[in-house]
Amino acid sequence: MGNCAACCRGFWCRAKNPDVRISLPAVCFMWQIAMIILFGVFVRYDEESDAHWSEHKRANNITSDIENDFYYRYPSFQDVHVMIFVGFGFLMTFLKRYSFGGVGFNFLIAAFGLQWALLMQGWFHFLDPVDGYIKIGVENIINADFCVAGCLIAYGALLGKVSPVQLMVLTLFGITLFAVEEYIILHVLHVRDAGGSMVIHTFGGYYGLTISWILYRPKLDKRLNGSVYQSDVFAMIGTLFLWMFWPSFNSAISDHGDGQHRAAINTYLALASSVLTTFAISSLSAKRGKLDMVHIQNATLAGGVAMGSAAEFMITPYGSLIVGFCCGIISTFGYLVISPFMEKYLKIQDTCGVHNLHAMPGVLGAVVGAITAAAASESVYGHEGLVNTFNFKGKYAERTPATQGGFQAAGLCVALAFGIVGGAIVGLILRLPFWGDPSDDNCFDDEVYWEVPEDEESIPPILEYNSHMVGKNTDRMSNFTVEQS
Amino acid sequence: MGNCAACCRGFWCRAKNPDVRISLPAVCFMWQIAMIILFGVFVRYDEESDAHWSEHKRANNITSDIENDFYYRYPSFQDVHVMIFVGFGFLMTFLKRYSFGGVGFNFLIAAFGLQWALLMQGWFHFLDPVDGYIKIGVENIINADFCVAGCLIAYGALLGKVSPVQLMVLTLFGITLFAVEEYIILHVLHVRDAGGSMVIHTFGGYYGLTISWILYRPKLDKRLNGSVYQSDVFAMIGTLFLWMFWPSFNSAISDHGDGQHRAAINTYLALASSVLTTFAISSLSAKRGKLDMVHIQNATLAGGVAMGSAAEFMITPYGSLIVGFCCGIISTFGYLVISPFMEKYLKIQDTCGVHNLHAMPGVLGAVVGAITAAAASESVYGHEGLVNTFNFKGKYAERTPATQGGFQAAGLCVALAFGIVGGAIVGLILRLPFWGDPSDDNCFDDEVYWEVPEDEESIPPILEYNSHMVGKNTDRMSNFTVEQS
Amino acid sequence: MGNCAACCRGFWCRAKNPDVRISLPAVCFMWQIAMIILFGVFVRYDEESDAHWSEHKRANNITSDIENDFYYRYPSFQDVHVMIFVGFGFLMTFLKRYSFGGVGFNFLIAAFGLQWALLMQGWFHFLDPVDGYIKIGVENIINADFCVAGCLIAYGALLGKVSPVQLMVLTLFGITLFAVEEYIILHVLHVRDAGGSMVIHTFGGYYGLTISWILYRPKLDKRLNGSVYQSDVFAMIGTLFLWMFWPSFNSAISDHGDGQHRAAINTYLALASSVLTTFAISSLSAKRGKLDMVHIQNATLAGGVAMGSAAEFMITPYGSLIVGFCCGIISTFGYLVISPFMEKYLKIQDTCGVHNLHAMPGVLGAVVGAITAAAASESVYGHEGLVNTFNFKGKYAERTPATQGGFQAAGLCVALAFGIVGGAIVGLILRLPFWGDPSDDNCFDDEVYWEVPEDEESIPPILEYNSHMVGKNTDRMSNFTVEQS
Repeated sequence: MGNCAACCRGFWCRAKNPDVRISLPAVCFMWQIAMIILFGVFVRYDEESDAHWSEHKRANNITSDIENDFYYRYPSFQDVHVMIFVGFGFLMTFLKRYSFGGVGFNFLIAAFGLQWALLMQGWFHFLDPVDGYIKIGVENIINADFCVAGCLIAYGALLGKVSPVQLMVLTLFGITLFAVEEYIILHVLHVRDAGGSMVIHTFGGYYGLTISWILYRPKLDKRLNGSVYQSDVFAMIGTLFLWMFWPSFNSAISDHGDGQHRAAINTYLALASSVLTTFAISSLSAKRGKLDMVHIQNATLAGGVAMGSAAEFMITPYGSLIVGFCCGIISTFGYLVISPFMEKYLKIQDTCGVHNLHAMPGVLGAVVGAITAAAASESVYGHEGLVNTFNFKGKYAERTPATQGGFQAAGLCVALAFGIVGGAIVGLILRLPFWGDPSDDNCFDDEVYWEVPEDEESIPPILEYNSHMVGKNTDRMSNFTVEQS
Repeated sequence: MGNCAACCRGFWCRAKNPDVRISLPAVCFMWQIAMIILFGVFVRYDEESDAHWSEHKRANNITSDIENDFYYRYPSFQDVHVMIFVGFGFLMTFLKRYSFGGVGFNFLIAAFGLQWALLMQGWFHFLDPVDGYIKIGVENIINADFCVAGCLIAYGALLGKVSPVQLMVLTLFGITLFAVEEYIILHVLHVRDAGGSMVIHTFGGYYGLTISWILYRPKLDKRLNGSVYQSDVFAMIGTLFLWMFWPSFNSAISDHGDGQHRAAINTYLALASSVLTTFAISSLSAKRGKLDMVHIQNATLAGGVAMGSAAEFMITPYGSLIVGFCCGIISTFGYLVISPFMEKYLKIQDTCGVHNLHAMPGVLGAVVGAITAAAASESVYGHEGLVNTFNFKGKYAERTPATQGGFQAAGLCVALAFGIVGGAIVGLILRLPFWGDPSDDNCFDDEVYWEVPEDEESIPPILEYNSHMVGKNTDRMSNFTVEQS
Repeated sequence: MGNCAACCRGFWCRAKNPDVRISLPAVCFMWQIAMIILFGVFVRYDEESDAHWSEHKRANNITSDIENDFYYRYPSFQDVHVMIFVGFGFLMTFLKRYSFGGVGFNFLIAAFGLQWALLMQGWFHFLDPVDGYIKIGVENIINADFCVAGCLIAYGALLGKVSPVQLMVLTLFGITLFAVEEYIILHVLHVRDAGGSMVIHTFGGYYGLTISWILYRPKLDKRLNGSVYQSDVFAMIGTLFLWMFWPSFNSAISDHGDGQHRAAINTYLALASSVLTTFAISSLSAKRGKLDMVHIQNATLAGGVAMGSAAEFMITPYGSLIVGFCCGIISTFGYLVISPFMEKYLKIQDTCGVHNLHAMPGVLGAVVGAITAAAASESVYGHEGLVNTFNFKGKYAERTPATQGGFQAAGLCVALAFGIVGGAIVGLILRLPFWGDPSDDNCFDDEVYWEVPEDEESIPPILEYNSHMVGKNTDRMSNFTVEQS
């Protein structure tokens, strides 16, 4: 595998042995054991998931179990969970021979990432000042899923070109960077970003793109970099679950009551609007108006990304429609023009087009959020509503909407910086030659890391259709299979 | 494409050019821009999704955020949303070469329809008397999804035989008719129809069937009107999500408390029952008792349709089972006998069999609802329960259950009339020759409106299995592909 | 079908006619009619789903509709419902030619089983002492789904080797045994098992394995006992929905408030941990470290099974991670070593490997539950928390955690006994020669019980790609098809 005879790039050789039999188990075990130890030292239940809840309830005059945060957020959590594992996972099954890798490695790195995210976010945001423990509840596990989303976006840019060990490394550093970036944006700058246009999509997008730039493969074999009919239908499962549950994504951790309610409605509208413009541009750009599944699978989601910051603001229903309208156009345009340009001139190979689906709409979302925040007024929000929505409390009690808009814009810069600088560092680490990445002519092929079953077609038709009538053909088939493989 | 030389039907020619490169983008843009303008003029947040919620809460002595309607209805909304996009979408992927069109156009028209539905339903039901705005909250977006369901049902009858532009027109008129019909049934006649046996299923079914009758294609090429193994499995995704979430559909907008609770249980039971009779009739009707996937995919859902009106009534658990029992039989019988009869003698080509899944069970559901309403009594419901369930308040305080039963029956007639008359008018509009519909021998084929990827089989096996070992075959493959396409 | 000439085993002949045209409809109709009659005699709405709710509310000083149990449990119910129908159903689509049977028969027996479960569980747990009716609400339908899960697990061991009529019989007896076993474990022994490590997984696993042992087929044809690329991707749909919603499974019927909250978090963590160890062992065991889809599809779920008993206990977050860590290892090891061993030496053919996914992790979960219960203390739970979590009330007020641990262990023995003895009896019943089971060379083939559509490949390429250009090939294709089938 790999024709080393014809090419020797020495230490930086990319056509190394993609055997991960030692490295993958070693990384999985080490990191899982580290998680267990760190959880043992640092993580406990919070007051709403602890058995002392009934005492806590009495002490705080909470009259009913239904006031437990679990009932406010758990349905949204499950929707987000579906987005992370089925949404992102199946969206990446579109490649003809990389569906196992798409959905399987997504599963692996998300399951690892959420544990590390609980710790990292815990240290930064949820440390109990009294006993020093990280106290976790339903909001933490939503946040952990969010944090993972950033790394899965980065995976989208690299799909088919990296080894699972590289992905584990990418996730370890990605979650770490995410938690620091998030701390600076949400806590130091006191920026509002409930659906993560900045902290998740902008960061994750540029993090992945920068890594992809560093790992550029000039001789990449593209024969398997495409879809087949069935794999496109599989990818639509991912698309639709992302699309349907995005209102839950943007509302999952916004304020109880009107905050969650408004975030869901705004996102619902923006998404609907971007579907129409995506279909329009996709049809307009092709001979005979034929639609392209790549656009439908991806650009229809851009409206949700771009509502990530402003979803809980009073952006108005028609404002949401306008955001979705623009995003569908920009994102489809990105697939048509910008991605080919980036690949040819900037040497960035972006398998899933995360630049079009996450990076650009994320930046746009941050801008929309900054403008909407700057334009907020007591006449629209009411005094109490303004304070609640922007959390102008405590040391931020004096902040005005205009200032808030400025801080929102500053948050975008932080996200961009973390994505690009962090991606560059991690990309260099991932160039080290011992991660078991596939050679250029092995990319986009599940055969490298998976036991791929024989295809149905390799069974001669007579065996398949009349199998119950055939007596002694077993041997023949076995021979046939052996010859093929 | 289309052999115009051999056939010229002049103005009414159906084999016109299915090029939608101008018309589809034009319609998408125009209508989306219209939506933005109309939303700008008419739509605002309601009091539960507005930032003034905390003031509203205090003014109305609401003690907790959990009393926001969002927490009563949002989980059900998300289930309904999954039914609309994944349920209906994947149910229509069963055709061997029309899965893109099934799930993709479903996505397009649902995303457009829900915006128009918010406006139309808003003007009829949710106009704020003070400031004249339509105020939207979670109940509105559920209703918009319901409204869209009617048009998706109609699409089921026409699947594979119409262009996306025709579907957009069908949806525009369908939503309009729906809103008027719903206003008459629910408000003028004060009929109860929480799950829409009448307003959604009866209307949508006959609307689509009438259009299909008008658009009858005597020379329809049926070679692609069938499934393959994988497409049948994809369709089961749609079936199961519809089946599982139907209890949420029927309970999503019924009364808080026992109303939602009872509607969910009744629907759950009716659905379970119709599965068994569907399997029974399907097996009974075939040589060697072999089951037919068409029946399993569709008739199992009939119990949910037929509980649409009566779900929130005290129909009793065994009453629900009886309804499901009958529906499974009737619906499967429809696929076996009525659909072929309708196609042969009534010239109605019903691709998905919506007559069996929606129209007939919808009518049956309306009848069940009328009977159950007429039989209601204070001994069963309690005085308060009777008033709440049928909303015998205000100017309807004097209405008796028997009268209510009569009005329920009248509601069915309205739904039928709107479906048939509306369908006839829209059908004639859709016969106009400039909508880009496919020719008779182009039907059920994604090639017409989609860029369809090369099939895996067109890659010679050696390329596929040993792609990483092959050096210079790229050119060969390209040639091969070109020859094929 | 079946070559009776060459083999006559007389009364116990297993190669009998798999024609179910009479038996399947007869069973479906009889049992559904029986359900209707029994529901008519026994089942009514409970006070929270009855129209008298508003009176009940007033009488019990319930201030808000949101206190209706529906709002505490319905979102979890829907998640569980998805696990039963899509989770279990699609997990069983992995076989190359048995996807219809996997998802379809799963659908049939679940829909029947839940009705029978409502009755059986009702008689044992939910009988109203005043009027003798079974009163049902949302908790009952969750429990019915749980009860069905036991039988679906058993189906997993038998997948592809039994007829739908046998499955209906298996379900009838399985539900009956389940309800008795559950009554003894939860009520007589007062054991806590919210997620059913014992009552569902241990029982269901050994029930299916014992039946499979009795129905051993020494000459089983295994050519179709494997996956193809697409069917493995379909199975991942099942895996992921089971994995994502398992926190809802384990928390659905635990205590309001902290109980549900904690159960969800613990399960979430255990599942994440078992993903990493599954990937590790799978990679470690194969040449070149290639991952095996069978492991990823199944062993990743073992952490959820093993948290079934202890999920609502204060097992601590790191405790959950440890449980998941061990389960991923044990379960993958089971697929690698124990399943082949069981098939070769114990004559147990376990199609889906339920021993590795359900039986072993279930036993482990019961042990974990017993230990965690025995180690419980007031210092960790608080006095009130301890009483609530273990329900040390009424006649159990004197029970200590240590005693509780002993009873938990006793519960495991009951589950094992019911599974093995019950499975043996039902297995012997299923050996009777009139159930229409497939012959040894018919197993794992949908052709036996389903109308299977022609495969796409059987259409000559020219027809498929250029179908709209071809004029008179219809007849040719029909001929071709006939010859093939």
